[in-house]
Amino acid sequence: MFNFNSVSHAFLLNRYRALPLLLTSVVLLVAAPVNALQQSELEVYPPNWWAGMQHPEVELMIYGEGVADDTVSIDKGKATISRVNALDSENYLFVTLDISGARAQDFTLTLTDNDGSYRRLHYSLDKRKEGSASRKGFGPKDAIYLIAPDRFANGNTANDNVDGYQDKVDRQLKGGRHGGDIQGIMDNLDYIKSMGFTQIWTMPLLENAMDKYSYHGYSTTDYYNIDPRFGSNDAFIEFSEQAKSEGVGVIMDMVLNHIGSNHKWMEDTPSKDWINNEGKFVGTTHKRESLHDPHAIESDIKRFSDGWFVPTMPDLNQRNPHLANYLVQNAIWWVETAGLSGIRVDTYSYPDKVFLSEWTNRLMDEYPNFNIVGEEWSVNPAITAYWQAGSQRHDDYDSALPSVMDFPLQAAVVKALNSDESWNSGFISVYETLATDFLYGDPNNLVIFPDNHDMSRIYTQLGHDKAKWNMAMTLLLTTRGIPQVFYGTEILMGNEGSDDHGIIRSDFPGGWHSDSDKNAFTGKGLNSDERWAQQRIKALLQLRQTYPQLFQGKLKHYAPVDGVYTYFRTADSTDKNSEKIMVALSKESVELSLTSFTEMLKEGQTLTRVSDGKTFEATDTISLPAMSASVFIVK
Amino acid sequence: MFNFNSVSHAFLLNRYRALPLLLTSVVLLVAAPVNALQQSELEVYPPNWWAGMQHPEVELMIYGEGVADDTVSIDKGKATISRVNALDSENYLFVTLDISGARAQDFTLTLTDNDGSYRRLHYSLDKRKEGSASRKGFGPKDAIYLIAPDRFANGNTANDNVDGYQDKVDRQLKGGRHGGDIQGIMDNLDYIKSMGFTQIWTMPLLENAMDKYSYHGYSTTDYYNIDPRFGSNDAFIEFSEQAKSEGVGVIMDMVLNHIGSNHKWMEDTPSKDWINNEGKFVGTTHKRESLHDPHAIESDIKRFSDGWFVPTMPDLNQRNPHLANYLVQNAIWWVETAGLSGIRVDTYSYPDKVFLSEWTNRLMDEYPNFNIVGEEWSVNPAITAYWQAGSQRHDDYDSALPSVMDFPLQAAVVKALNSDESWNSGFISVYETLATDFLYGDPNNLVIFPDNHDMSRIYTQLGHDKAKWNMAMTLLLTTRGIPQVFYGTEILMGNEGSDDHGIIRSDFPGGWHSDSDKNAFTGKGLNSDERWAQQRIKALLQLRQTYPQLFQGKLKHYAPVDGVYTYFRTADSTDKNSEKIMVALSKESVELSLTSFTEMLKEGQTLTRVSDGKTFEATDTISLPAMSASVFIVK
Repeated sequence: MFNFNSVSHAFLLNRYRALPLLLTSVVLLVAAPVNALQQSELEVYPPNWWAGMQHPEVELMIYGEGVADDTVSIDKGKATISRVNALDSENYLFVTLDISGARAQDFTLTLTDNDGSYRRLHYSLDKRKEGSASRKGFGPKDAIYLIAPDRFANGNTANDNVDGYQDKVDRQLKGGRHGGDIQGIMDNLDYIKSMGFTQIWTMPLLENAMDKYSYHGYSTTDYYNIDPRFGSNDAFIEFSEQAKSEGVGVIMDMVLNHIGSNHKWMEDTPSKDWINNEGKFVGTTHKRESLHDPHAIESDIKRFSDGWFVPTMPDLNQRNPHLANYLVQNAIWWVETAGLSGIRVDTYSYPDKVFLSEWTNRLMDEYPNFNIVGEEWSVNPAITAYWQAGSQRHDDYDSALPSVMDFPLQAAVVKALNSDESWNSGFISVYETLATDFLYGDPNNLVIFPDNHDMSRIYTQLGHDKAKWNMAMTLLLTTRGIPQVFYGTEILMGNEGSDDHGIIRSDFPGGWHSDSDKNAFTGKGLNSDERWAQQRIKALLQLRQTYPQLFQGKLKHYAPVDGVYTYFRTADSTDKNSEKIMVALSKESVELSLTSFTEMLKEGQTLTRVSDGKTFEATDTISLPAMSASVFIVK
Repeated sequence: MFNFNSVSHAFLLNRYRALPLLLTSVVLLVAAPVNALQQSELEVYPPNWWAGMQHPEVELMIYGEGVADDTVSIDKGKATISRVNALDSENYLFVTLDISGARAQDFTLTLTDNDGSYRRLHYSLDKRKEGSASRKGFGPKDAIYLIAPDRFANGNTANDNVDGYQDKVDRQLKGGRHGGDIQGIMDNLDYIKSMGFTQIWTMPLLENAMDKYSYHGYSTTDYYNIDPRFGSNDAFIEFSEQAKSEGVGVIMDMVLNHIGSNHKWMEDTPSKDWINNEGKFVGTTHKRESLHDPHAIESDIKRFSDGWFVPTMPDLNQRNPHLANYLVQNAIWWVETAGLSGIRVDTYSYPDKVFLSEWTNRLMDEYPNFNIVGEEWSVNPAITAYWQAGSQRHDDYDSALPSVMDFPLQAAVVKALNSDESWNSGFISVYETLATDFLYGDPNNLVIFPDNHDMSRIYTQLGHDKAKWNMAMTLLLTTRGIPQVFYGTEILMGNEGSDDHGIIRSDFPGGWHSDSDKNAFTGKGLNSDERWAQQRIKALLQLRQTYPQLFQGKLKHYAPVDGVYTYFRTADSTDKNSEKIMVALSKESVELSLTSFTEMLKEGQTLTRVSDGKTFEATDTISLPAMSASVFIVK
C-alpha cells in the first residue's frame, strides 16, 4: 500500500475507543468462580488453534484486567504449558503451549491471581480440514482479480453504517466509504468466474475502526475480525467456500508492518517496544535499498524499517518475539479458518527483515504448496528478486517467500508502449526486464500486473489509447508470471485528471443498485469500447484456461526487431513439434516472415490466429497491423 | 565504442591492400639458404616473447607464402615445440612452444617445405623488466584522463599524412583525421599531470588503415603496430615511459571483438571460421541481455555475439583457439612492451563469452595486481556486475575482469541532476544505484565517469548548467570508484546541437599551433567559466591526491533528505574519530544541522570547507546554497 497523496496526517491516538470489542467469538466469557474478586472478561488470540500443525507450539496472547501476574495451569493430560511471559502491561499474558502430537481437544486454562482468585479460559484445538496442509496456492495457471471491496459492489446496504464505527458511508467523498462489501463480491462471483479469473485478491477486509479514511483497509484495528461494514468472519468464510466451490481461490491481503492508530494496542500496549519509535510518529524513508546497500548508514536502515508510513499507522516492532508470533499465528489462523489459496503481503520489506524470514518460513512450513506474494515496490529487479525464495543473493538471508509483485515489468510495459522503437527504447525495455529474470528464484511465480490499486489505472498510464491497452493486456495475460487485473480494467476504467486513490478506486458500474443506467456485470449501458475491452480480457483469460499447461511452461522471446516483439509459450521449449502459443506485438504495420522463428516453429505446423481463426503455415509471411497484438495457437 | 550515428556503412573488403606491411621489426628477414627455392619473408606474431611468464607456452602465428605445410624444428636444447597447427590458409602456421622454465634466449626455428627448401626464423625470448609481473594497475587512488588522440594535440605535423594511408588529414571533416598524435600527448604531459590526473587512457592507437573514418581507432588493421599517423611503437613506449616517470600510468584501449575491414586477415584469412558469419556482414543485435536471459532464443545469443557492429568492422570468432591465443598474447605483449598500467577493453561482452573468461584469466594470471576495465554499456547494474570478478552470479561463469565501466552511475547522475527532488526522483537515483553495489564483486574498482567519447558531453547532458556540472563533477570525483574524465570536460566542452561523435570529440583548444587565440594548456583565451571549471577539477583532483587513503576507503551515504545528498569517504567507516571527507550536494538553499550525521561525526571534530577554508564544529548548522556542492575535511 502507498498512501502518499491521500492519507490524512492527523495523528489520532485515542486513549479510549468507543467501539464494541466483541465482534465474534474471540472473547470467551469465563464462569465466575465462587471466590472471584474480579468479574472480568478474558480475550485470547488466536481464539482457537488446530491439532496436527507442523509447528510444535502455539502462543496464546491472553488479554484481561491484571492478568499479567496470574499463574496458569492446564487440565492434566492435555497440551502442556511451555512458557508463560508477562511484558510491560499488566493486562497481557503470553502462554505458550506445547501441542506437538496433541490430538484435537478442548481444554481449560486456569489463571490464578496472587490472592487465589482465578479465571478459567476454555480453549479448543480443532481438527484440521482434510488436505489443509497440502493445499495448493495460486500459481501460473491462474489469473487474479484484484478488488477494492468498498468500491466493487454493495451487496448488503444494511451494513453500510454500523453503530460505534465513526467513518460513515458517503459515496460523494473520494476517500470515504462507499458501501461495497463481501456480499457484493459473493453476488458477482459468476461475473468474475465467467470473465475467466480463477483467484480473487481483495484489499484488506479486517476491521479498520478509524475515524475517517478507513475504506482502504490498511489500518488494521483487529487482526481477528472482518470489518462489520464489509460483513463478518462468517461471511468471509462463506465467500471463500463458495468461491472455492466454483473453482476460484481467495487471496487475503495481510498487513504485517503497521496497525491503525485506533487499534487497542495503542490504548493498552503489551510492551514498551511493541510499537517502533516508542509509539510516536517518525516517518519511514521508503528507501528500501538501504537494507542491501553496502554504503548504508545504520540510522537509514533503522529509519526505513522502523519509520511509520503515516501518523495514523503505528509501525509494529516485529523484533518483539511475542508480536512476531502473533503475526505468524494470525496468518496461519486465517489460512486455516477461511480456506485461503494465498496471501498478498502489504508493504513487504518494511517490517523487520529477520521477522520476515521467520514469518515466511513458518507459513511455508505449514503449507509447503501454498503461495504468498510480497509487495516490494521497486522497479529494480535486483531489489525485488532479493525477497523471492531461491533467488541468488549477496548474503545468506533465508527467505521462503514464493512470489513477489513484478513492479519492474509493470513499469517496463508502460515504458515500452509509451516510447518509440529504437535500439534503446520501446519493446527493448520489456525484453531487457524479462532478460533480468536470472535474478529470480522463480520468475514464473511472479505476480505480474498492468496496474494496481496504488497507481494510475493502466488505461490512463497509456494515455487512454485502446491499442496500447490491448497490447499491454495481451502481453501481461500471456507472458511468464501470474497475471493480476485490477477490477474495472476490463471496462477501460481510468483516472484521467486525478491520481487520487479515491478516484483510481472508483465504484464499479453495476455494483450499486441505485446506479441503474450502467452495469458492467450485465453489459447494460457499456459503450462499444468498454464492451470490446471486456470481451478482449475474457478471450485472453479463456485462452489461459484452455492451455494452462502452456502458461505454466516456458517463455521464449525474440529480441525486438523493427518494432515487433515476438514470443512463445510452450510446455517444452526444446521440442519444436510441441503445441505452443505465439504472441506478436507490433508497433508498425509489417509483413512478418514466420521463417524468422525457425528455432520455435517447424515446417508443417499450423498457426491459428485466435482473433479470427485464420490459419497460417509455419513458412508463411503474415501481415501485422500497426499497434496490434496477435495471438496464435501453433500445432 | 558505439558508432550508431557516425559510421559509414560502406562495406569495403579490399582483396588487395596497397599498404606497407612492414612498420616495425615484426617481420623478420630470413637469410636465404643456399638451396632456397623461395626467397620470401616470414612474419611472426608475437614478434618476440619473454622468459619467466606464468603461462608455459607461447603460440607463434607464422605468416608466409605456403608456410602451412612446412615442418618446423628448433635449435636443440632451447624451448621445445609442443604443437604445430595449420588451418585453412596455406600461408599461416601456428607453432606452439613450451617455454616453461626457459631462460631468456635467442633461437632459430627452421621451417622446411616438402621439397627440402627451408626458411629460418630468429626469435627471442627476452628478459622481463624488474617488477613486470607484479606491476600495480590503476586503482581507486587514481584519476583517469580519457583522450581522443586525433583530437587532443598535434605534436608532430610531419605524420599528419603518411604515404600509403588513404584517410588524409582534414580538420574541417567531423569524421576526418585532425592530426593529433602521441607526440601531442607527450608535449602536454605536464598539463595532464598538473591537473591532477594520474592515468591516461587513449582511444586506440593501433593501425587503422581504413579508407576513411579512421581517426577513432576502433578498426584495427594491425594488432602489433601503432598507426604511423599517431607515431610509432617506439613513440608509444617513450610516451608510456615518460608518463610513468612523472607518476602517470598509461591505459591501452584494446579491441577484441572486431577488426577493420582492411585488416590483412580479410585479404588472406587464416581459417574459414576466423571471422563470424562467414566473413559477411550480419549486424549484432546489441542485446547484451540475451547472454543472461533464461528466455533467450539461441539465435539471438548467437546474433549478439557473432553479429558485426558495422560492415567495416568484421567480427572476430574467438572460439577459434588460435585467434583466442593471438588476442591474449597480443594484450600481454603490449603490457610487457609498453609498460602499461591498465587496459580498457572495448565492447566487452560482445566477443565470445568463454573466450572473455580465458582472456581475463590469462592476463590476470600474468599480472595479479593489474587492472583491466571492460566497457559494458548497460545501465542495469545486474548486467554490468555480471562481468566483474568476484560478483555474485547466477551461473558458474568465471570472470577475472577486475573492473567494469559504471554506466549505471553515469546515467543515474544525469537523471538525478536533471530531475526534481521527490521520493522517487532526484538524488534518489544516485542513492539507489550506489545501493545496488551489493551486486558487484568490487564496487570501489569500478571506473566512473560523467561522460565518455561515445555520448554527449556531460556539460551538454546537463543543459549547459554550470551548477549542475559542478555537482556532477564533485560527486564523480569524490564518490566510490575510479573517476575518468574525458578531455575537454575540464573546460566545459559541449556538443550543443549535435550528438555527432566528431563534434563530441572536437579538437582541444591549444593542441594545434595554428589555433593561436585559445589555449587550454596555458589558459590563454579561456573565458571565466572555462577557467573556473578547470580550477574546480584541479582542486578536486588535488584533494584526491592529498587524501588517497580516503578515496581508497569506504563510502557511507545518507538517504537524500529535503534535496540534500550527503556522504562521507573514510578509511575506516566504523571509527567516528577517523579523518574523513564529507560531501554535501544540495538542490535547495538549506540550513543543514551537522547533528544529523552523528553516526559519522563526533562532537569535537572540526570540518574545514575545502572551497574557502572556513571551519565548523560537528554540532554546527551550516548553510548550503541551492544547487551547490560542498566538500569538507573532517578531523
